[in-house]
Amino acid sequence: MSGTLYGLGVGPGDPELITLKALRLLTSVPVLAWPAPETGESLARRIVAPHLKPGQTEIAIRMPLDANRFPVEAVYDRAAEEIAGHLDAGRDVAVICEGDPFFYGSFMYLFGRLAHRYPTEVVPGVSSLVACPAAAGAPLASRDDVLVVCPATLEEDVLRARLQDVEAAAIIKIGRHFAKVRRVVEACGLAERAHYVEHATMADQKVLAFTDIEQARAPYFSMVLIHRRGEAWR
Amino acid sequence: MSGTLYGLGVGPGDPELITLKALRLLTSVPVLAWPAPETGESLARRIVAPHLKPGQTEIAIRMPLDANRFPVEAVYDRAAEEIAGHLDAGRDVAVICEGDPFFYGSFMYLFGRLAHRYPTEVVPGVSSLVACPAAAGAPLASRDDVLVVCPATLEEDVLRARLQDVEAAAIIKIGRHFAKVRRVVEACGLAERAHYVEHATMADQKVLAFTDIEQARAPYFSMVLIHRRGEAWR
Repeated sequence: MSGTLYGLGVGPGDPELITLKALRLLTSVPVLAWPAPETGESLARRIVAPHLKPGQTEIAIRMPLDANRFPVEAVYDRAAEEIAGHLDAGRDVAVICEGDPFFYGSFMYLFGRLAHRYPTEVVPGVSSLVACPAAAGAPLASRDDVLVVCPATLEEDVLRARLQDVEAAAIIKIGRHFAKVRRVVEACGLAERAHYVEHATMADQKVLAFTDIEQARAPYFSMVLIHRRGEAWR
Repeated sequence: MSGTLYGLGVGPGDPELITLKALRLLTSVPVLAWPAPETGESLARRIVAPHLKPGQTEIAIRMPLDANRFPVEAVYDRAAEEIAGHLDAGRDVAVICEGDPFFYGSFMYLFGRLAHRYPTEVVPGVSSLVACPAAAGAPLASRDDVLVVCPATLEEDVLRARLQDVEAAAIIKIGRHFAKVRRVVEACGLAERAHYVEHATMADQKVLAFTDIEQARAPYFSMVLIHRRGEAWR
C-alpha cells in the first residue's frame, strides 16, 4: 500500500487562517515538504510552524526566486522522486502550500508528476485573492461582474488591454513590476477605484488607497484590487 | 462601546474547511446571522451546525431565490437594522457566509450598510473558486495565465466573447443557465479542456469531464473550469 500525497493549502499568512482539515493532516502525516527560496526561510513553513509536531520528516524544495536562470524542472523532478520514495514506503506526504495549492501555486508541478502514480488529495485553502479584499474592505465582485485576475508579469500593452473594459480585477505577482502596474492602472483611469494590499493577514500587512501609494517598490506578496463601480455592492 | 460586525467565510460546504479563526469567532460571539432561502434550510448554517453552541441568538436573513421579483433592498435594510440593534447594545454579531464573504457574496450588502458605522472585520474563507479545482484535480491557472471568472447569468454572446481567447476560466452561478453554458463552451471549442463540478466538498459532490455530462440541469452550486492548455502545469 503506497502512501497518499496531499497538497495542503495553509492560507495567506496568518496561522489562524488554516482550515481544520489542513491542520488535521499537517499534524498527522509523517512527512512534510515545503517550497523555499534558494537560501533562507520558507514562508509556507513559517505559516504552519506553530502547529508542527516533533519527529516529522521535512523536505525543503529550494527554488531560485528568478526561475529563469536555473533548471527549475530538475528541482521538481528531484523533489518528486524524493517524495515518491516516501509514498512507495507507505508514508503519507503533505506538501505545504501558501494560500491555495491550485491558484497559481507551484504544487501543481508536483501534482503533474505524481498524481497519476499515487493516491492524491488537494485540500483547498484561503487564497490571497480573497485575503486581500478582506484586508482592504473591498469586495472583489458581485452579481454579473466578470472578474479578471492578471499577473503583473504580462507585457505592459497586454496588461493594459486586459484592464481596459474590466468590471473587477486583481493584479497579482506585482513585485518588481510595480512601476508598470502603476502606469497601466493610471492610463486606464482606474486609480481612484483601486486598492493596494501587501502581506495580507501577516504582521506587516499594509493597505492603501491606490492614490496614496508613495513607495516605489512592492514585495512579491502584494496585490492591486480594482472595481469599476468603486464598491462592488453598488 | 458598540459590538463588532464580523463577516465569516466558512468555506464551500465541508465543515472541516472552516478556518481556525472563523471557528473561534463563530463559537464566541453572542449573535449569529445567516442567509437562507425564503423557506427551508440555510446552507451557511448547515456548514457551521456541528460547531454551534447553545444559547447563541440567531438571525435568519431570508431571501427569495429569484431576487428580481422581490424588494431585496428592503430585506437587507431590515437585516442591517436588526444587526445594528445588537451592535448598539455592545454585542458582537457574526454573519455566516458560504465560501468567502467578498467573492460574489451577499455579505457585501450588509457591509455596505454597516461598515462605516461599526467596527467591522471580514474573515476570508475557502472559496468555491479554489474548492472546485481541488475536487476536479484541475489547477486553475499558473505563471502568466490570465484567469477570467464569468457568471453564467451573462447574455450568451457576452459569455462567448469573454471565453473566446481565454487561457483559464471559471464559469460560476450555473443553475438554470446550464444549457447556455454548454452551447458556449462547445462553440468556443473548449469542451475537451473543461471540467464540471457540482456541490464541491459536500456529501453529494460530483465531478465530470465536460464531455461526459449527460444531465440537462445543474444546481446553483456548480462550476465549469476551463484551461486552454488542458492542464495548467503544462
